[in-house]
Amino acid sequence: MTKTNNIGTLRHSTAHVLATAVLEMFPEAKFGIGPFTEDGFYYDFDLPRTLIPEDLEILEEKMKKIIKENYPFEKAETKISDALKNFKELDQNYKIELINDLRDEKEIKVSIYKTNGFIDLCKGPHVESTRKINSQAFKLTRISGAYWKSDENNKQLQRIYGVVFNDKKELKEYLKQQEEAKKRDHRKLGRELDLFCFSDLVGSGLPLYTPRGTIIKDELQKHIEEVCRKYGFQKVSAPSLAKLELFKISGHAKKFSDELFHVTSEKKHDFVLKPVQCPHQTQIYASKTRSYKDLPIRYMESDKQYRAEKTGEVGGLSRVYAITVEDGHSFCTVNQVKDEIKNMINIIKDFYGALGLWGNHWVSLSVRDYAHPEKYIGEKEDWDQCEKILEEISSELKLDAKRCEGEAALYGPKLDFMFKDAMGREIQIPTVQLDFATPQRFELEYVNEKGKKETPVLVHRAILGSYERFMALLIEHFAGAFPTWLSPVQVSIVPVSEKFKKYAQEVSDELTKGEIRVNINDKDESLGKRIHEEEKQKIPYILVVGEKEMKNNSVNIRTRGKKEQKIIKTESFIKDIIKEIAEKK
Amino acid sequence: MTKTNNIGTLRHSTAHVLATAVLEMFPEAKFGIGPFTEDGFYYDFDLPRTLIPEDLEILEEKMKKIIKENYPFEKAETKISDALKNFKELDQNYKIELINDLRDEKEIKVSIYKTNGFIDLCKGPHVESTRKINSQAFKLTRISGAYWKSDENNKQLQRIYGVVFNDKKELKEYLKQQEEAKKRDHRKLGRELDLFCFSDLVGSGLPLYTPRGTIIKDELQKHIEEVCRKYGFQKVSAPSLAKLELFKISGHAKKFSDELFHVTSEKKHDFVLKPVQCPHQTQIYASKTRSYKDLPIRYMESDKQYRAEKTGEVGGLSRVYAITVEDGHSFCTVNQVKDEIKNMINIIKDFYGALGLWGNHWVSLSVRDYAHPEKYIGEKEDWDQCEKILEEISSELKLDAKRCEGEAALYGPKLDFMFKDAMGREIQIPTVQLDFATPQRFELEYVNEKGKKETPVLVHRAILGSYERFMALLIEHFAGAFPTWLSPVQVSIVPVSEKFKKYAQEVSDELTKGEIRVNINDKDESLGKRIHEEEKQKIPYILVVGEKEMKNNSVNIRTRGKKEQKIIKTESFIKDIIKEIAEKK
Repeated sequence: MTKTNNIGTLRHSTAHVLATAVLEMFPEAKFGIGPFTEDGFYYDFDLPRTLIPEDLEILEEKMKKIIKENYPFEKAETKISDALKNFKELDQNYKIELINDLRDEKEIKVSIYKTNGFIDLCKGPHVESTRKINSQAFKLTRISGAYWKSDENNKQLQRIYGVVFNDKKELKEYLKQQEEAKKRDHRKLGRELDLFCFSDLVGSGLPLYTPRGTIIKDELQKHIEEVCRKYGFQKVSAPSLAKLELFKISGHAKKFSDELFHVTSEKKHDFVLKPVQCPHQTQIYASKTRSYKDLPIRYMESDKQYRAEKTGEVGGLSRVYAITVEDGHSFCTVNQVKDEIKNMINIIKDFYGALGLWGNHWVSLSVRDYAHPEKYIGEKEDWDQCEKILEEISSELKLDAKRCEGEAALYGPKLDFMFKDAMGREIQIPTVQLDFATPQRFELEYVNEKGKKETPVLVHRAILGSYERFMALLIEHFAGAFPTWLSPVQVSIVPVSEKFKKYAQEVSDELTKGEIRVNINDKDESLGKRIHEEEKQKIPYILVVGEKEMKNNSVNIRTRGKKEQKIIKTESFIKDIIKEIAEKK
Repeated sequence: MTKTNNIGTLRHSTAHVLATAVLEMFPEAKFGIGPFTEDGFYYDFDLPRTLIPEDLEILEEKMKKIIKENYPFEKAETKISDALKNFKELDQNYKIELINDLRDEKEIKVSIYKTNGFIDLCKGPHVESTRKINSQAFKLTRISGAYWKSDENNKQLQRIYGVVFNDKKELKEYLKQQEEAKKRDHRKLGRELDLFCFSDLVGSGLPLYTPRGTIIKDELQKHIEEVCRKYGFQKVSAPSLAKLELFKISGHAKKFSDELFHVTSEKKHDFVLKPVQCPHQTQIYASKTRSYKDLPIRYMESDKQYRAEKTGEVGGLSRVYAITVEDGHSFCTVNQVKDEIKNMINIIKDFYGALGLWGNHWVSLSVRDYAHPEKYIGEKEDWDQCEKILEEISSELKLDAKRCEGEAALYGPKLDFMFKDAMGREIQIPTVQLDFATPQRFELEYVNEKGKKETPVLVHRAILGSYERFMALLIEHFAGAFPTWLSPVQVSIVPVSEKFKKYAQEVSDELTKGEIRVNINDKDESLGKRIHEEEKQKIPYILVVGEKEMKNNSVNIRTRGKKEQKIIKTESFIKDIIKEIAEKK
């Protein structure tokens, strides 16, 4: 078995092997689609009965046999009409629908792959034959429901997920990481730590933050705004609604056409919910005459923006209908662009540095897809200049940015920062984007040194991106054990018995005066049980107070993650924790 | 001339006198409607030409003549069909439309009033004859456009506004107050002080807060949350969207039917934008099993809620499509209700006391309209009990609440607090509302001492209400001269000349360290002009710095509204202003 250097091809070929096995097991099976994913593949099936977990083992055995037989992946190019005939004979209605879609797109030919008895409509590519797949390096992981074409009005098919790697070791490592990820899953921890919830009456994709979750969200907002204010950003506040016209001008109406939420009323109002924040911010800029002396003007805002995600795809905090985005923009002159971008990169360094993530990262210089200029707005000359400026900054700041073609934004090239979380997963959030097009589209102006009107440049920046996704990420990164400054409850006081409730309250009052978030657990339960309850909530400090502590105005501290306990003066503990919170350690 | 004790009747009669005068001036005039308002009346006309301000003087003269003639207001009850015939003969298409609307509502008879040549479809009542109106106590104030039935798809009519009082003195006082109100108009000051703006591309009714306006909004939010946290409120955060079902259960879908914004997408999503916040908060309560030991649970939130106001009626900050409401709720046991309400009243006292408004207020005990129980949800017994509890609280806290029938909320009676602003206008914002119905509708529960399930009581409270309306009110109350803690720019430093720019920057840096919001005005303009500019911005402190100040590490202070200047050590000024801000003076 040779290693393939295109893991995607290997994974997609394994999907075909699964389909072949499914066909053996259910000759009447109808096939949906089976693409590769970031760790393997899935395939959607319409089957005569509901699958059970044991089926996966049977299918795995069948797949191993198919791999061993070393069937070739035979490709054939065929006319649309022939393909249609072919799949009609096979009674494969989903494939027929896909072929008809291709016909609507004016395709003339389609390609077909055959593996033993299984025939699929498929662009490929595939490995040569089934033995290229390592029998020891794949695993079927789960079964779920999936609406055909992700539309809940369609029939729900059965989806089988699998993971595929080059060798056994990679698979083993992956499964171990998955086990860890499962423990850290933000949906599970969100429930256990009471951070957010969902309601059937409100709807899925619409999380509600509990008091504890709201504290984390607010602390993050306070922190990011403090950092950005230091770098000259001013907060603004725009409505969520606007006329569609605003986004027609910006180009977002076209880009997000089917992701836009339309807002109407019986009184014939006709608005959209903003899918992005920049267009609104241009209008605040445009509300006054601006002089070159006023520039750069830097706006920031944490507000909800809305995307009509597919109903079948929302879940947890990572995929929701409304994301609260911390968005910022600088309106500046061409000569200020470099300094503005450097200023923004400093914010990213400060913010991610405090979270211990700066250093273990790489930077993408995301440029156009040169083969498809129609995907972007703006002039070629501006794009050339923008890309050059970003190149220079990368070199001046020694960012060592990797050029990634086709990764640019609608309106300009960007620098994207990629970090790694505690499980080694890549996080792509912060970004700095250059934009010559938007100010022109909105006819923004400033009066230059000579009294003439000029168009400013717009620089976009995201630091933590959306609070929802960032919180999901932090929950998983810290496995719910947040640094003290972010912890919803920073200290929990557990009195040894009824007798020390009063002292517990006194300590709590002292802590509250220092703006520390405290909880007292004085339930009618054993001391051990109460300490364990607080530990499960991952509280940074648990203070046990009894006779000795009360006599000495002290507390017995159990620090999260540490075995030893120590008794110190309450006063001194308060001083230490205030310092820790202020320094965001 | 005798005084009438129903000023509304007098005002509406004056509207008919205006219409009579208009008919004399334009025999082809078509008449819309002419109701009385809180200070007079308006009447909408469809006229052959656009009115000019000079027309108002001519019309006033004509009105005085009509008053002098002492025409009676003759009333006649007529069958709908006769009225229709009558107004068809008069070629009054708007009146015909109104009669047809009445017919749709199954009215059988309508009433008609006649004054000299003018005939109106009108419910009345009216004064006996025109001389009951004091010729010296009315004035036509302005002309504006108004869509027929407030619908921008209809024809725009010309609206004439007038004010009417009992006597000349009242009119004079009113006009003086209006002059003052004009100077303080929040729309005018909002522009001059650069607090918020509007954009045609975004749409009317959708204000955008500039950096300065955002500071005020944020300071208010920080303050109210600090106060409420002290009284045990925990912040939560809910989405703006929900399924309609949520509001069907709460009863708001019916109450706000034509004010609801519906949210749809090409992907067939179907949501509404929340018109109120309580239903979402009940879902956070419902996300966990609650014990009597957990109660009271107090949630607060500052979030946008949406109402589809009539397009013709939005304007400034007082009438917008999205209001950001600081809303709070307590879920408690019946036994806790009294303490909860008292707790909320303490918050109102704290908050309005700090603004200098507590004391000059009265309280309304807003109870049901006993003749129309169908306007409310919930059981009669619960209503009786709720009203009794509020009566008791009013007496215990010596609120001296005035019973106002028909002023209750959909779900329960309430205590409303009425304050007076600097111009003597009544402000009705804070409210505490008792609600037995909503928890039942959402089947909320807690486990009582005996392990049995019970329904909690819901107490609603608003402190500052909507930030938009509250800001409009504060701008006008303070005439833009905000207390230091609320001022977007707290200190402005004006260096005497170029030479002292560096020192100005040093002083600014020191102030910024103390988190004071500073601005330096070192433009290329004369010292006098620059000081004047800052004064116009109503900055609380203007610090002029020159040779003498630099030598002594001091500043020359001009305090807003005070004539005398004084030179004090910079250090000492910083200490004073930090104290002033902390105490919210």
